[in-house]
Amino acid sequence: MFDEVLPPQGKFYGKVFVFPVRVYYEDTDAGGIVYYANYLRFAERARTEYIRALGCNQQEALESEEKFGFAVRHIDVDYKAPAVLDDALAVTCEIREYAGATAVMFQQIWRGEKLLVEIEVKVAYLSLSRKRPVRLPQSLIEAVEKL
Amino acid sequence: MFDEVLPPQGKFYGKVFVFPVRVYYEDTDAGGIVYYANYLRFAERARTEYIRALGCNQQEALESEEKFGFAVRHIDVDYKAPAVLDDALAVTCEIREYAGATAVMFQQIWRGEKLLVEIEVKVAYLSLSRKRPVRLPQSLIEAVEKL
Amino acid sequence: MFDEVLPPQGKFYGKVFVFPVRVYYEDTDAGGIVYYANYLRFAERARTEYIRALGCNQQEALESEEKFGFAVRHIDVDYKAPAVLDDALAVTCEIREYAGATAVMFQQIWRGEKLLVEIEVKVAYLSLSRKRPVRLPQSLIEAVEKL
Amino acid sequence: MFDEVLPPQGKFYGKVFVFPVRVYYEDTDAGGIVYYANYLRFAERARTEYIRALGCNQQEALESEEKFGFAVRHIDVDYKAPAVLDDALAVTCEIREYAGATAVMFQQIWRGEKLLVEIEVKVAYLSLSRKRPVRLPQSLIEAVEKL
Repeated sequence: MFDEVLPPQGKFYGKVFVFPVRVYYEDTDAGGIVYYANYLRFAERARTEYIRALGCNQQEALESEEKFGFAVRHIDVDYKAPAVLDDALAVTCEIREYAGATAVMFQQIWRGEKLLVEIEVKVAYLSLSRKRPVRLPQSLIEAVEKL
Repeated sequence: MFDEVLPPQGKFYGKVFVFPVRVYYEDTDAGGIVYYANYLRFAERARTEYIRALGCNQQEALESEEKFGFAVRHIDVDYKAPAVLDDALAVTCEIREYAGATAVMFQQIWRGEKLLVEIEVKVAYLSLSRKRPVRLPQSLIEAVEKL
Repeated sequence: MFDEVLPPQGKFYGKVFVFPVRVYYEDTDAGGIVYYANYLRFAERARTEYIRALGCNQQEALESEEKFGFAVRHIDVDYKAPAVLDDALAVTCEIREYAGATAVMFQQIWRGEKLLVEIEVKVAYLSLSRKRPVRLPQSLIEAVEKL
Repeated sequence: MFDEVLPPQGKFYGKVFVFPVRVYYEDTDAGGIVYYANYLRFAERARTEYIRALGCNQQEALESEEKFGFAVRHIDVDYKAPAVLDDALAVTCEIREYAGATAVMFQQIWRGEKLLVEIEVKVAYLSLSRKRPVRLPQSLIEAVEKL
């Protein structure tokens, strides 16, 4: 019906993927700023688009017989300054390390020239049906190495 | 830093504003589909961009001395088919009626040719400091009439 | 470890189930009130505890081979007054009608003597693996009829 | 109307406050487990009830002329095992350090004997109107020292 309206995908600046996020009422709290857990939603959107841009489709992986998906193992978040309603943010994503089933990603959230949040995320790739970690998709690793 | 990465704004098809939304993990639930309340987040994003496209800035209104904002008075939501992870949705928004402090908006959520959700929303414009309804901004009414 | 700390379950006042909800920062938005979609999260919690109190376990149903679950078909929500941070709310739930795969529930959200929100919800019971409606569990119907 | 239905408050085990949380559909995602950011909502609920149990009212502080509130500065979250729909969780909270405007809290999320998540949170107490850190409320410090 409205197929010409395509969602944004973000883009690469060298190895760093940058994804735009607008702050809506749903993201804020009664303190007048973005609720602290919601920056993690922004970060996950950016990681998803980063992985999609590298050629991996998470819904297909989830719908496969084995049901593959990423699980977050560890996060470290440094909140430097708050975002507010209507802010246009840039959320970055880059892979720092990867080995076996796990990868470490580094992310920043910027409003213009101001760095608001820094996030380090360790994720593991899992077979949800076998409930255990499995090697990261080879296609993903090759795509990362080509960056 | 990454100012060239601008958020999407949606666009008008006649009087109907259409706003793209991608479904992420945050939007889904253990049933494997979008959680029923989260379609309302998508709808509110579209309403916000619709109002922005008509020249109103909600963060400015909220930061004004009187603190103006929209409050939802009534919603009627018809769930016809579910959205799933990774879906690219088109969320529409159009004003059906308006008078005094209130407006009725009609919204649909589409995935390609498939209509998933229909929403009717009645909103009121409020002075948050005086805690009572106030007339809709004249600039908004004029922008709607020009569509 | 802390098994003695059990979650609340709500209780019946005749046929009406009443479930307590506290408003936290996560529920509010920059307007200083509860975000309109979040009342639906409160309502779903109350429906879940109502169904649990009637002897149905949704996680078991979801983990069964057929994967049964409720899907919301229609909601009508009347927002009469806002809830704010720290409010202690009472969320009611009662079944108004049921037939075949569907049930209509009526819910209210109160803060003390003040009625804040009224919700009518139509749900359908689904086999998620067959992707179609199935008859409501007999045990649920019997429990409702005994109220 | 239903005042006798009071929300849960959690309780102290020595210096450790324990708060119960039930997992609902809203908390889960299409992977069938609790979405990673939502554990932070559980943790903030527990911190709020911990602070309330120590005699501080956050809504009153927010409504005061200066508008005081806590802001999260840093979090470190270790995800050990996932929670799923219907889980009854125990969320702990204890203050590890405090000085001036900041406090470090340590939190764990348990399901029975199984430790699922560990969280270290650094918060700062802010005057929202002056937009800067202020000394932690003396009443809070005294209550912590009495534990």
